[in-house]
Amino acid sequence: MRDALLLTPGPLTTSLTTKTAMLRDWGSWDADFNAMTARVCRRLVSLIDGEGEYTCVPLQGSGTFAVEAAIGTLVPREGKLLVLANGAYGHRMARLTAVMGRDVEVLDVGETSPVDPARVDAALRADKRITHVGVIHCETSTGILNPLSDVARVVNTHRRRLIVDAMSSFGALAISAREIDFDAVIASANKCLEGVPGMGFVLARQSSLMQAEGRAHSLSLDLHDQWCYLERTGQWRFTPPTHVVAALAQALDQFDAEGGQPARLARYQANCHALQEGLRAMGLQPFLPERWQAPIIVTVHAPAHPAWDFGDFYRRTKARGVVLYPGKLTTVETFRVGCIGAIDSSDIDAALDAMRRSLADMGIPA
Amino acid sequence: MRDALLLTPGPLTTSLTTKTAMLRDWGSWDADFNAMTARVCRRLVSLIDGEGEYTCVPLQGSGTFAVEAAIGTLVPREGKLLVLANGAYGHRMARLTAVMGRDVEVLDVGETSPVDPARVDAALRADKRITHVGVIHCETSTGILNPLSDVARVVNTHRRRLIVDAMSSFGALAISAREIDFDAVIASANKCLEGVPGMGFVLARQSSLMQAEGRAHSLSLDLHDQWCYLERTGQWRFTPPTHVVAALAQALDQFDAEGGQPARLARYQANCHALQEGLRAMGLQPFLPERWQAPIIVTVHAPAHPAWDFGDFYRRTKARGVVLYPGKLTTVETFRVGCIGAIDSSDIDAALDAMRRSLADMGIPA
Repeated sequence: MRDALLLTPGPLTTSLTTKTAMLRDWGSWDADFNAMTARVCRRLVSLIDGEGEYTCVPLQGSGTFAVEAAIGTLVPREGKLLVLANGAYGHRMARLTAVMGRDVEVLDVGETSPVDPARVDAALRADKRITHVGVIHCETSTGILNPLSDVARVVNTHRRRLIVDAMSSFGALAISAREIDFDAVIASANKCLEGVPGMGFVLARQSSLMQAEGRAHSLSLDLHDQWCYLERTGQWRFTPPTHVVAALAQALDQFDAEGGQPARLARYQANCHALQEGLRAMGLQPFLPERWQAPIIVTVHAPAHPAWDFGDFYRRTKARGVVLYPGKLTTVETFRVGCIGAIDSSDIDAALDAMRRSLADMGIPA
Repeated sequence: MRDALLLTPGPLTTSLTTKTAMLRDWGSWDADFNAMTARVCRRLVSLIDGEGEYTCVPLQGSGTFAVEAAIGTLVPREGKLLVLANGAYGHRMARLTAVMGRDVEVLDVGETSPVDPARVDAALRADKRITHVGVIHCETSTGILNPLSDVARVVNTHRRRLIVDAMSSFGALAISAREIDFDAVIASANKCLEGVPGMGFVLARQSSLMQAEGRAHSLSLDLHDQWCYLERTGQWRFTPPTHVVAALAQALDQFDAEGGQPARLARYQANCHALQEGLRAMGLQPFLPERWQAPIIVTVHAPAHPAWDFGDFYRRTKARGVVLYPGKLTTVETFRVGCIGAIDSSDIDAALDAMRRSLADMGIPA
């Protein structure tokens, strides 16, 4: 039997070549491993055109660990973070900031529309204590793409600093430091870069990171300390997830071989287009209007039919080799289908077929 | 060419079967993955005879992340931790406690002898504010085995609570909750369990964990929150390192097939014995007296010869397929050789041969 196709926002389907890179053990102190870390970091910095001004600090753990580390390190203890929230990840960013005892305010635009730059402008105008603004580039709860450039322009006008959670967009949607002014972009190995989970990374403005000594609330999540140790020794401060790093190095080679960010975006756009068309053809309605839909994950209204049950639908599509993702909205019943990972539109076709047959089995017209 | 043999304290050499378990992608929301997490946790609890009283909370990141999470969650904000230190890992435990703003005191016995239970008794007698005691079971800086049972008895007599960093001993040296009174034992996947790096875990007394709501200094490292979410949903709170978990599940099956902890200990003891014999035969002196030496990692005095240079020695043994580990002592020049991982005494023989030839090449009599 073939492995299931993961139509999920990460962990997702990776290539066999990427996974095969994990068939070797690496010494964490070894020069070959250090060279691999350095190569991965250089490539990640170049992805945002950040050479010279930005540095890459890799971090063990999930993406949330990296978000917490970025905020705990970059926002001063007496600073204040304004979080632009339109879904679960924005609220999580606010929550982790509050837990570490920093001042935080949430500008909540609800979960059905993108962040509004005019409201950001008003919020910054109204509160001079806000030093940093946090935004989620693509809010995975719905798949909404937030207007990063416009938000960055407003934040920059007010001379505040921007922290971007680009977890689910990084590698697919262009983010260039030449065009957008930010202090940090945070992402992880296991989304659009198509690596495996176990590490995140922060692409931080070096001048900001240099001012952050002793600021973090946590030793493990202290990005300044992690960065200094890496600069000094070439090694991760604490045991790195060696196999995960090796998989990311391999995944980045494949990313380049495919044609980099533009090619990856094009493939995901084709996946997303095929998915939306196919869903509509079976009477299922995508939740977002086309103009807000990032080609990352599609939120779909659950069918308004008495036989609908997501658990049942999930098990039936999984039995056909396709793993879907539950909804995360608080008020509307939805489910989600990812467009990302080492998959192409033939996989989307297979997934649509599995969904169609599963609905039919459930007695739901499709 | 064969992969290098890692004679390191982890990441270490794992079996091909363990690594092959990473050739599959798992949905983090999926029932099969949840069942795997549950199975791993149950097995880890049973390893300390902790059924009913203890629970396993897995955590993303390196072992240090798990140590920080255990202290941040289990030691109350107004509590005080006494750290028994005889090496780098004890000092790291104290440092991470201070960074999170908790009161901490270090009982430093130097780096050349085990923790002395009589001094722990005196320290607890002298300071009633100490609520918790932290100890490193096997201090990897030297390979010293600390007297865990004796320390636990003293701590228990004073009705304080014990937190054990068993990172490099867990799975090889027996720790039974029936014999030793502790609040938490912390370890990671990539040491004596012979998994790959990327996750740690805390085996915590359930009654203590239940009192720990809202206590942590960090959302990512909040073990209470992690535990509640896992109990409620069967899922990790944030993206788990799925491939690392799969490798650990596989490694635990091999652990059981080998004969569990007694068999693993016997193999490591044989490795350690062969290693020490062989080192002495080439004129190299182990740093520790036999009675303090845990069968985990052997610290070796550097040869007192003008041609000695660890970097040179390392590169030469590595060219022969053997990766050694640098020393971590502050006052004496040493290097370290691990006894753990998916290796047996024939590997140790090969390693000794590589060391002998490398010394000869360097003009150092062996």
